[in-house]
Amino acid sequence: MKTDGVYVDTVGVYIPQQRVSVAEAVEQGLYDEFHVQHGTGLTAAHLAGDLPALDMAVAAARHAFRRSAADIEDLEFHAHCTAIQHGPEGFYPPGYVLRELGASGVPSTDVRQHSNGLLAGLEVAVGQLTGAAGAETALVTAAENFTSPLIDRWKGFGTGFTASDGGAALLLSGESGCVALRSLNSGTLPELEQWHRGEESLLPFRGEQRKASGTMELLSYFNQHVMPLDKCMELIRDFELDLVHRSLVEAGLNASDLRWVVAANSDSRMIDQTKMQPLGLPLSRSTWDFGKEYGHMGACDMAVSLNHLLTHGLVSPGDHLLMTTSASGWVSTAAVLTVLDIPDWAQEDTDS
Amino acid sequence: MKTDGVYVDTVGVYIPQQRVSVAEAVEQGLYDEFHVQHGTGLTAAHLAGDLPALDMAVAAARHAFRRSAADIEDLEFHAHCTAIQHGPEGFYPPGYVLRELGASGVPSTDVRQHSNGLLAGLEVAVGQLTGAAGAETALVTAAENFTSPLIDRWKGFGTGFTASDGGAALLLSGESGCVALRSLNSGTLPELEQWHRGEESLLPFRGEQRKASGTMELLSYFNQHVMPLDKCMELIRDFELDLVHRSLVEAGLNASDLRWVVAANSDSRMIDQTKMQPLGLPLSRSTWDFGKEYGHMGACDMAVSLNHLLTHGLVSPGDHLLMTTSASGWVSTAAVLTVLDIPDWAQEDTDS
Repeated sequence: MKTDGVYVDTVGVYIPQQRVSVAEAVEQGLYDEFHVQHGTGLTAAHLAGDLPALDMAVAAARHAFRRSAADIEDLEFHAHCTAIQHGPEGFYPPGYVLRELGASGVPSTDVRQHSNGLLAGLEVAVGQLTGAAGAETALVTAAENFTSPLIDRWKGFGTGFTASDGGAALLLSGESGCVALRSLNSGTLPELEQWHRGEESLLPFRGEQRKASGTMELLSYFNQHVMPLDKCMELIRDFELDLVHRSLVEAGLNASDLRWVVAANSDSRMIDQTKMQPLGLPLSRSTWDFGKEYGHMGACDMAVSLNHLLTHGLVSPGDHLLMTTSASGWVSTAAVLTVLDIPDWAQEDTDS
Repeated sequence: MKTDGVYVDTVGVYIPQQRVSVAEAVEQGLYDEFHVQHGTGLTAAHLAGDLPALDMAVAAARHAFRRSAADIEDLEFHAHCTAIQHGPEGFYPPGYVLRELGASGVPSTDVRQHSNGLLAGLEVAVGQLTGAAGAETALVTAAENFTSPLIDRWKGFGTGFTASDGGAALLLSGESGCVALRSLNSGTLPELEQWHRGEESLLPFRGEQRKASGTMELLSYFNQHVMPLDKCMELIRDFELDLVHRSLVEAGLNASDLRWVVAANSDSRMIDQTKMQPLGLPLSRSTWDFGKEYGHMGACDMAVSLNHLLTHGLVSPGDHLLMTTSASGWVSTAAVLTVLDIPDWAQEDTDS
């Protein structure tokens, strides 16, 4: 869809201070030479320890509001992106974020799309900003804390990712902002649905043990029994390229017009082969070079990278960005944005 | 929000054949006289056994498409409403529904709002139908299978509910349909956020036992330590009445214009006191009388009742309906709809 009148007002992030380098992880026996070699340059993970993901989402939302002229009272819609369970079954995560912010009465949604979550939340928010709801200020939040015995943040997601903790928020406006959303397209590729399900039951809890999600073991089942990995990758490549092309056409741009391709924080080879080469762009135009320092924060990556670009002088007014993510489902989203100006907060607040 | 050009094209339902009456449940020792007395008329629960919730969502979606002139190929957006986990952690439920339907490439969302889910999914879909996405055909699905050792469907949710299994689907159109959506308003009352969380951790799994959600034990903590029940009920009543009033005003109607108030399937006293009396309407204008025969199917109730009204000759063109639901969060939604005509499928297909 082509979007007019949808802007990023501010971005907010929360990055945990505890940072473990790849060398330290190897020393601690958490990471090994095989992964270092195939991780092709991933450098670290940020650890939140016992700080719940939702508290990081709240911190990121407060960060976004501090940077904005908008007040909490102006908020007219909130989407929170849940990846792994953010509290007990039956509890409503956006309610926690809104209560902490002191925002009562606001319509909200809990959007569950894992690493594609922030763009999925953005898509839902665009509907509320441009459609019948006529909202003028919307907040999208995401956060991850992967500190669980079910999750091996170093090796559990294959060689392409180190899983990092953090929180992120996009404060959107229907009136003005530093970045304009030009277009966004998403889709579901349900031929790959079983990839993240394997042979697991679809019934509610019947006494089985809790298992980690997205492990190599679970993923391998699909590739061994249903569809080989190279066929999956081919399907995804064609599918995502179509979403990207439609988004570029709607924004009136060519791939060569893109200053940055904002990809999930993963290994350089994966970003190069799956995102940059199909667009004919060099790896240097991807967020790889600084994204590797953050690690993969699930749904947060898009906002964390946008914040980094804005606060580190890496964009200028007129620069075009492509955001591209995907997750189990299989779901993918592509969004094209244009930087309109570099706000004061981006020049003052370069620490985060 | 006032909505123009949003229609219910068809409704689809899946109601499991196995039906256990209150008398049978008492006989089996699952229900007792105390609950019978305070349940004030609830009569049954439908049981899906080992049929996964998602397969009932698929059956309901197929039912909706069979009744429609629209084809699967026309689908431009899908929202699936998840209440309790519909499969393994990390898996994407809408992908399963879309794969079974044979719908590839469609944008989708996993909306998690428990018993408020169908109206929350409808709200998200309205954004896609009326906003920049310009979708013309959207599907909202929901389903519940409460058959789990963690859930006592007879007594676990207090005296007001018997939990039933089932599936439901709304096929929406931006062009035409038998029912028009006139207005919809939702909100979050985050002051009650801790009601469905108690003292449970917000951290990811750390080795704790799985617990049931929404039990009386968990709910009681909040009422004993944070806010008394009567204060909660007062907040909810005022909050929901405001959403209902705004929706009526936007639809240009008074409460007395409503032919039916479609409420979640719960005990008659609860529906009367919390939904009907505040509007000055008699219980006979609520869906209580037939809803008690279905039991509470979580997010499905709204579509199951709409289907019942249409297929049992209980509505005529020009009749106005209010749909009103709520769930943990605390989230509530009110929607006003007007019946435009009674479609052929409603007159032919009175079994479901």
